[in-house]
Amino acid sequence: MKTVYTERHALQDGQSELIDGKLMPCWERPRRAELVIARVRETGLGPVIAPREHGIEPVARVHTAPYLRFLETAWDAWVAEHGAYDALPLIWPTRTFRHIEPDAIDGKVSFFAMDAGTPIMAGTWQAARASADVALTAAGMVRNGERAVFGLCRPPGHHAAADVFGGYCFLNNAAIAAQALVDRGAGRVAILDVDYHHGNGTQAIFYDRPDVLFVSLHGHPRQEFPYFLGYEDETGEAAGEGANLNLPLAWGTDFEAWSAALETGCRRIAEWGPDALVVSVGVDTFKDDPISHFTLESEDFLRIGERIARLGRPTVFLMEGGYAIEPIGINAVNVLAGFEQA
Amino acid sequence: MKTVYTERHALQDGQSELIDGKLMPCWERPRRAELVIARVRETGLGPVIAPREHGIEPVARVHTAPYLRFLETAWDAWVAEHGAYDALPLIWPTRTFRHIEPDAIDGKVSFFAMDAGTPIMAGTWQAARASADVALTAAGMVRNGERAVFGLCRPPGHHAAADVFGGYCFLNNAAIAAQALVDRGAGRVAILDVDYHHGNGTQAIFYDRPDVLFVSLHGHPRQEFPYFLGYEDETGEAAGEGANLNLPLAWGTDFEAWSAALETGCRRIAEWGPDALVVSVGVDTFKDDPISHFTLESEDFLRIGERIARLGRPTVFLMEGGYAIEPIGINAVNVLAGFEQA
Repeated sequence: MKTVYTERHALQDGQSELIDGKLMPCWERPRRAELVIARVRETGLGPVIAPREHGIEPVARVHTAPYLRFLETAWDAWVAEHGAYDALPLIWPTRTFRHIEPDAIDGKVSFFAMDAGTPIMAGTWQAARASADVALTAAGMVRNGERAVFGLCRPPGHHAAADVFGGYCFLNNAAIAAQALVDRGAGRVAILDVDYHHGNGTQAIFYDRPDVLFVSLHGHPRQEFPYFLGYEDETGEAAGEGANLNLPLAWGTDFEAWSAALETGCRRIAEWGPDALVVSVGVDTFKDDPISHFTLESEDFLRIGERIARLGRPTVFLMEGGYAIEPIGINAVNVLAGFEQA
Repeated sequence: MKTVYTERHALQDGQSELIDGKLMPCWERPRRAELVIARVRETGLGPVIAPREHGIEPVARVHTAPYLRFLETAWDAWVAEHGAYDALPLIWPTRTFRHIEPDAIDGKVSFFAMDAGTPIMAGTWQAARASADVALTAAGMVRNGERAVFGLCRPPGHHAAADVFGGYCFLNNAAIAAQALVDRGAGRVAILDVDYHHGNGTQAIFYDRPDVLFVSLHGHPRQEFPYFLGYEDETGEAAGEGANLNLPLAWGTDFEAWSAALETGCRRIAEWGPDALVVSVGVDTFKDDPISHFTLESEDFLRIGERIARLGRPTVFLMEGGYAIEPIGINAVNVLAGFEQA
């Protein structure tokens, strides 16, 4: 399997995130991708290819123009107001508030953010664009006949909605890839999200769409970030009714229970019959992940890849989360190796 | 003029708030109220009286039961999860999210918060309850015939909505006082909010109510916290249409422009003819306030009190913001002295 990768991801290297009531060093850091690419090379998974620049157009198919303008200009405006340290929001438009983009940069950051864990810094826009290009390049290769390609995206994408950033995500790589597949002729695309956290952004982007099925296995939002989306009763709306399947699981879920949910999700995908599959690969379901509560072992990730392979669809794997820094390479590449061996 | 005060406010003494992308020492701190009460005593404004406990019932007239349950239990749940340091949220239900209260304490804090600047600590619930009792006691005294009473509330209240805390506020003292006046027979109550920041919580609580007029002068939300409410076109809804008047002003506004807006607000109140008046007294319009951008001088606050006195209504003054630590006592008491001298 070919891997698409660029070192430009390292331009996103935030200082700290608000977690547990404190500003702590960011869990989402460049070393994550470096460990995964090292493992790709070490195991001989296949060639490593640089992404092709796709321009803003396929990104703008998923994200709004005001949001993209904000992401592109936020850092300069922040530096002019505060100086050159990471931007974080301070307030947010929750209940009782209107959704108006203010003029002040603090207000803009607060308007577009969904959390205080996703700092905007000098290289954020370039890194996010490069990550989207990785996803688009991988999708293009699959569109052109590859059985499967691994887009080693960083920053991740699945928490980002049409005009919302957060959960370490700025541009929704999986959604951008899925939309590109649709725009290049796929009648139906399925997105399978196996990250520990619900892919709230991906769900929201396609929630009223009949042509993109979203299936997610994740920590139950009653217990786990992002808390406010990912419940069982979210099945899509309007023309998208029935094209959304959430499989939330309780803290402590082991691979037996997790793989039963995967089976449910894969059967739904098979019934639905997509022309292509996008997989949001998070490996924070691993037992030693520092911010998650499932108990998967490294070898379990081989089984995940095997099961996905049995769907028999052209498949774009895109990297999402996983924070058990050292084993992240083994676990991510195990998904891909399991797929290849099936 | 009598002042209602209790030292229990000091139970709220948060460590830090997320502002300018950093966790900084809280601007809202016990010394604010200590300086104001010292100035009250130094100037001989009048007797200082302890608040009477009013129980939860008048508070529950304004705030929801789930919200009050959360505030009462949040600290113990937070300590059980994280240990004994200040609670802050990490995510929030912005666009695309549902408004569901999760089970996890981090999710609950995130669900009820509107910012990351309002830490919950061991004494938060007691301090907030005491602050509401200060407001209720002051309102009761005015109901019983006093021309005007100063409720030296701390923590402040005007940013707190029916089920939202933030902006250093937990219980909306002004709204609780206004509702108590209505419940004890006032047909119409007006709330005049002269704090530098928009009283978003107060507005939201009474937005559909025809019996409570809300008038606010404040930094324009396009430039200033809370950013997402306080615009000119918010005039009330349903039965409350016409009973909300926002007078947002640009950064750099001086007393000449500010007092012209006050005149507009006071004329609206006079036309409306309330049986009682509640004034949210913030003095962060002062020129040296560290987080605000108006240019009022200390003597201008005398003029504010004089203008309010000319409304000729039974008046409950309640303390809100003001962060120029040393002059806060002079400025707040000047409002009251100006009222008394008129």
